[in-house]
Amino acid sequence: MRIGILTSGGDCAGLNAVILAVVRRAVLGYGWDVVGIRQGTHGLLQRPPATIPLNDYVNNDGMLRLGGTILGTINKGNPFHYPMPDGSFADRSDEVIAGYEALGLDALIGIGGDGSMAILRELAQKGGINLVGIPKTIDNDLAHTEYSVGFTTAVNVAVDAMDRLQPTAASHERIMILEVMGRDAGHIALFAGIAGGADVILIPEMDYDLEDMAQHCLNIRKRGRNHALVIVAEAIKTDKGDIVTSGHDGQKAVYGGVGHWLAEKLGERTGWETRVTVLGHLQRGGTPSPRDRLIASTFGVHAVDLIAQQKFDRVVAWQQRRVVDVPMADVITGPRLVDTGETMVSTAIGLGAYMGTPPMVKKTAKTV
Amino acid sequence: MRIGILTSGGDCAGLNAVILAVVRRAVLGYGWDVVGIRQGTHGLLQRPPATIPLNDYVNNDGMLRLGGTILGTINKGNPFHYPMPDGSFADRSDEVIAGYEALGLDALIGIGGDGSMAILRELAQKGGINLVGIPKTIDNDLAHTEYSVGFTTAVNVAVDAMDRLQPTAASHERIMILEVMGRDAGHIALFAGIAGGADVILIPEMDYDLEDMAQHCLNIRKRGRNHALVIVAEAIKTDKGDIVTSGHDGQKAVYGGVGHWLAEKLGERTGWETRVTVLGHLQRGGTPSPRDRLIASTFGVHAVDLIAQQKFDRVVAWQQRRVVDVPMADVITGPRLVDTGETMVSTAIGLGAYMGTPPMVKKTAKTV
Amino acid sequence: MRIGILTSGGDCAGLNAVILAVVRRAVLGYGWDVVGIRQGTHGLLQRPPATIPLNDYVNNDGMLRLGGTILGTINKGNPFHYPMPDGSFADRSDEVIAGYEALGLDALIGIGGDGSMAILRELAQKGGINLVGIPKTIDNDLAHTEYSVGFTTAVNVAVDAMDRLQPTAASHERIMILEVMGRDAGHIALFAGIAGGADVILIPEMDYDLEDMAQHCLNIRKRGRNHALVIVAEAIKTDKGDIVTSGHDGQKAVYGGVGHWLAEKLGERTGWETRVTVLGHLQRGGTPSPRDRLIASTFGVHAVDLIAQQKFDRVVAWQQRRVVDVPMADVITGPRLVDTGETMVSTAIGLGAYMGTPPMVKKTAKTV
Amino acid sequence: MRIGILTSGGDCAGLNAVILAVVRRAVLGYGWDVVGIRQGTHGLLQRPPATIPLNDYVNNDGMLRLGGTILGTINKGNPFHYPMPDGSFADRSDEVIAGYEALGLDALIGIGGDGSMAILRELAQKGGINLVGIPKTIDNDLAHTEYSVGFTTAVNVAVDAMDRLQPTAASHERIMILEVMGRDAGHIALFAGIAGGADVILIPEMDYDLEDMAQHCLNIRKRGRNHALVIVAEAIKTDKGDIVTSGHDGQKAVYGGVGHWLAEKLGERTGWETRVTVLGHLQRGGTPSPRDRLIASTFGVHAVDLIAQQKFDRVVAWQQRRVVDVPMADVITGPRLVDTGETMVSTAIGLGAYMGTPPMVKKTAKTV
Repeated sequence: MRIGILTSGGDCAGLNAVILAVVRRAVLGYGWDVVGIRQGTHGLLQRPPATIPLNDYVNNDGMLRLGGTILGTINKGNPFHYPMPDGSFADRSDEVIAGYEALGLDALIGIGGDGSMAILRELAQKGGINLVGIPKTIDNDLAHTEYSVGFTTAVNVAVDAMDRLQPTAASHERIMILEVMGRDAGHIALFAGIAGGADVILIPEMDYDLEDMAQHCLNIRKRGRNHALVIVAEAIKTDKGDIVTSGHDGQKAVYGGVGHWLAEKLGERTGWETRVTVLGHLQRGGTPSPRDRLIASTFGVHAVDLIAQQKFDRVVAWQQRRVVDVPMADVITGPRLVDTGETMVSTAIGLGAYMGTPPMVKKTAKTV
Repeated sequence: MRIGILTSGGDCAGLNAVILAVVRRAVLGYGWDVVGIRQGTHGLLQRPPATIPLNDYVNNDGMLRLGGTILGTINKGNPFHYPMPDGSFADRSDEVIAGYEALGLDALIGIGGDGSMAILRELAQKGGINLVGIPKTIDNDLAHTEYSVGFTTAVNVAVDAMDRLQPTAASHERIMILEVMGRDAGHIALFAGIAGGADVILIPEMDYDLEDMAQHCLNIRKRGRNHALVIVAEAIKTDKGDIVTSGHDGQKAVYGGVGHWLAEKLGERTGWETRVTVLGHLQRGGTPSPRDRLIASTFGVHAVDLIAQQKFDRVVAWQQRRVVDVPMADVITGPRLVDTGETMVSTAIGLGAYMGTPPMVKKTAKTV
Repeated sequence: MRIGILTSGGDCAGLNAVILAVVRRAVLGYGWDVVGIRQGTHGLLQRPPATIPLNDYVNNDGMLRLGGTILGTINKGNPFHYPMPDGSFADRSDEVIAGYEALGLDALIGIGGDGSMAILRELAQKGGINLVGIPKTIDNDLAHTEYSVGFTTAVNVAVDAMDRLQPTAASHERIMILEVMGRDAGHIALFAGIAGGADVILIPEMDYDLEDMAQHCLNIRKRGRNHALVIVAEAIKTDKGDIVTSGHDGQKAVYGGVGHWLAEKLGERTGWETRVTVLGHLQRGGTPSPRDRLIASTFGVHAVDLIAQQKFDRVVAWQQRRVVDVPMADVITGPRLVDTGETMVSTAIGLGAYMGTPPMVKKTAKTV
Repeated sequence: MRIGILTSGGDCAGLNAVILAVVRRAVLGYGWDVVGIRQGTHGLLQRPPATIPLNDYVNNDGMLRLGGTILGTINKGNPFHYPMPDGSFADRSDEVIAGYEALGLDALIGIGGDGSMAILRELAQKGGINLVGIPKTIDNDLAHTEYSVGFTTAVNVAVDAMDRLQPTAASHERIMILEVMGRDAGHIALFAGIAGGADVILIPEMDYDLEDMAQHCLNIRKRGRNHALVIVAEAIKTDKGDIVTSGHDGQKAVYGGVGHWLAEKLGERTGWETRVTVLGHLQRGGTPSPRDRLIASTFGVHAVDLIAQQKFDRVVAWQQRRVVDVPMADVITGPRLVDTGETMVSTAIGLGAYMGTPPMVKKTAKTV
């Protein structure tokens, strides 16, 4: 047997731990060969396909601790709708499938998020690829798994930032705003907001009122707290009801963003000095947390076991402290948003944080 | 309303985060008073009872990040079987209950593990105390909750140690042995072993064979890995079938222990240089991980909400990324051991680690 | 004896460690009283002056680990040139001195940077205050001391960010730009650039050429490195020779900044995808590094010893791994810039980093 | 040109950063080849000598962050007095020199401590090797350099442990004892003791009295501090005047040690509950601190520059925040002990820590 593995979409912490687990299980447990495909589906468009033999990584513990992905994950576009030099789009899926076939693989493990997984599944169905998916996304917005690889590390980075901002906020009596990732789903802001002691937590799933928020900050001051911590996802509504996003993943760097917009609004309304920090790419990289390594390891081992059992078109998942697998079709149904009735929201509000009010009706996004 | 809170048993990271969450929910949400009882039930034996008013902590974010417990948790003994100066034991439960009554509290939140919770429940039933329990234990061996406060931080400390030991093991071509806590249940060793890349993981729940273990290490060497990492819980069997423990929590410091015993045995059998590190109390203290703060926060808020609903004799718990509550009677049934058929064990073995074989038949413990 | 202590200017890590050391030395060693003055000289404008008795902090180890300053350090302005509500400026130095006199202190320890120290000295000379200075600044730009309190932690935060950015840069084959503090002096960028493996290090003290820098990045790519790391201080020259700054400490949050400006320029010239991270206030707060605590402790103890010896108008300093003291007049002579002939610069260039060419002739700053 | 590099003696954090700096300077700056020699002088006894070509590491940033040494550093013994299988000792220096000559190198960079450096120098003088030394030792006991590679990371690990032990000590009202490395020189204990807030700091260079120490702890309790932190180097005197050591680097794991011995003595005299943690090998491994990477980088670059200038028999060193070089003969004169009149000692005592009294007259060491 000979299996392939690729990483797709934005990188995150724990991808190399998944790769190590796959290699260890496949090589030590089954005696298979493992081939790494470079740069997601982009590597399959190369001739010959761009690959790395992975068996020799079996002894490489460093992979557990190494951020990013040794396979690379540059994104040149959806192969079914591939941007061409002349500005048009082409269906290059046949080329990708031919690339895959040229490798003589028995199965493919695709590590990706919602979007990547949907494309990989489409390729698998068209090309007869034996596909198993492993969920990764710092946003943790995949359905049917409590955790995706990369989320816990992203939360830790955000909490670490909150821990640094709190003392300086108190020393200078300021409102400190931390902008974190989460374009559709606010899981990072919510988890990190609770663990980091935020006074205001703004997520895409919930509506808010600038006046109420400002009043909440003033009330906090009144009860003797000389500073406030705000955590905000990268996409929230404006006071006009438009959605504002910071566009980190866009084609070019964006000047300004949600955090700065909010700082201005909140500063005006409270008379309080405000400062903004945008975490950005710090959330993606770096050594994965123990939790992410653990989840990555269970996912990698289980994915190989699924292949051994010839169970394809499935995605591994984490439920009730166990690894399970679910149909891929169930996972690619769009982002799992924060359930505004869930524990995390009630906890945040129970701790005295301002979160606004659900539900938010989505409008067209506007990048500030 | 006026509620009390105490911490009992060994300290761990996240206790102060629980206290903060309780204070914030009770004071901001319900307008109650919160009284901290010092040193577990020991504080209730003082006259007047030793307490700290906690309402003013409502603005103290630092509690989120502060290890240990501001309430203290020295353990002078079970009030139902209290060790007296003359060497005898006395039932001092009535004194504890009288101390509690003197405080004029409407309810009590007890933060503790298996053993503490059982004693608190007995006191509550005898004294008519409205009790709600919050599970904490670095060993994570409480039933009906996926996580207890303190476990994740303890695992992180152990993984951090593994990360430091691996490069020096490789540089010197050694077997490095890390001894971690877990007298009855091996959850720390198992989680940290996977996340830290252990080649051998020994837990109280599983039997092992020294010759097999040594052979496993030699096989690893044969496949080109120049070092090995071993993680071992503080209580495992000897080669004679006796249970060996390191006795960290005993009355006096113990010379030697499980790790050193194993180092000698493994060194003899492999001819490999071995070194031992005993993590000990490092696992208890320090800043709680974001995960522990999050769980602590949900637990604290929910415990207060239970009191508001007059739901007593219950323990808050974490299940499927939600906070729930379960009958206290269900939780104090003894340690939840590692299920040797579960994901973590199959993952560890799938990664190529040696774990021995279940089940272990318990014999009398012997401290080496 | 009764001594006062205040913190002035931007906060940084290690201020509370200084305060703890002063209290321990003064209380345990000399039996004096220590009075904390709130909010720098602002606290002395209050009636009565805003103070905190500090003797009871003698047992508070937590101060060693606590970021920011418990005394606060809001900056309302130079008392000799104080901004009044009507937009005018007033000399309020007599009020500050009167506030100080009202406290009945025998000496004052002022913890501050270049600017704060100059103002405190002017006040001391006018009011006959027995002043000893302790240098703190994340920028490390004070003369006659190898290190000021706060610098090492700021560098560590920046290196931590570099460590997170490198794997994601490699995974996506990008140029990652990290903007750090340092308006006049580039010590943070230089130290963190070396320790974090930067390919380009831009500091205010050195000139550069955008075309050369872009060529350097392309050369790196040619030699097989698929990404580049750039670290840039918050104030550098534009390609027109103007100085660009990010204005973090200005009155309002600034949209954009040096990093984003550079990303655009470098992206255009290399065709390489660029991403920007602005560290901002993360560099100030959080638990001080062991080194900062060590320096803070030696500074605090030595400052009290100077008072005991009636040696005033001096600043403690760190030279050759020893604490010394120097005349305050020597320290307030303006920022100590990076010496472009020094070890750090030659090391960075020796490692293959692009740093441009000295010297830079200063022009008028322009905030982008 | 073609230069060799080897690491010798116990590993520490920052060795790979030195190697990276040497490679970058030699390859990018001078166009030389760099050959890594495996396992110190042991690699030169192999036929052919065990080596790794290092030029390709020029792009490997990971080396900055990787603990240990990729070259390995197993110690089989001094080649001038090499332990033979029959128990005798042989002079194998000619074989080592022949191995070196077989590599056709123009110069050798030896990274090591006091002992390794002396042996390398003897080899160099006998074999006409162009040698440059780079100081590394977690103990920081090399003369003429303020810092050696590895020291700062070791201190950080120890302070991190102190930070974890303090909250649990306070929660349980205990004396916590941390045993750190330092057989001859107590720099780690001293630096970490100050930065970590130790109440007692014991180092090999200073004498102490158990009764005084116990009284100091009782006095601390009297002033309202409910716990005490003790940091102790691995070799101190007993109450009989014998020197006790923990023998970590001996041939076999040792049961017990200095920390446990002290715990018993101190517990008996104070009636206070004591607990011990032995840091051991945790101090060696893991990601180097930014400071260690910085020093490693300046050392590596400067060592190559010395070779380019044909300056041999010299050791690079750190003085006054500059890299310099000194004659190797000056460095190998034995360990640089803590100067009991220096800043660190007076700071520790000034903070209220018990350190005993200098000087200690050395007696024969006895391993407990």
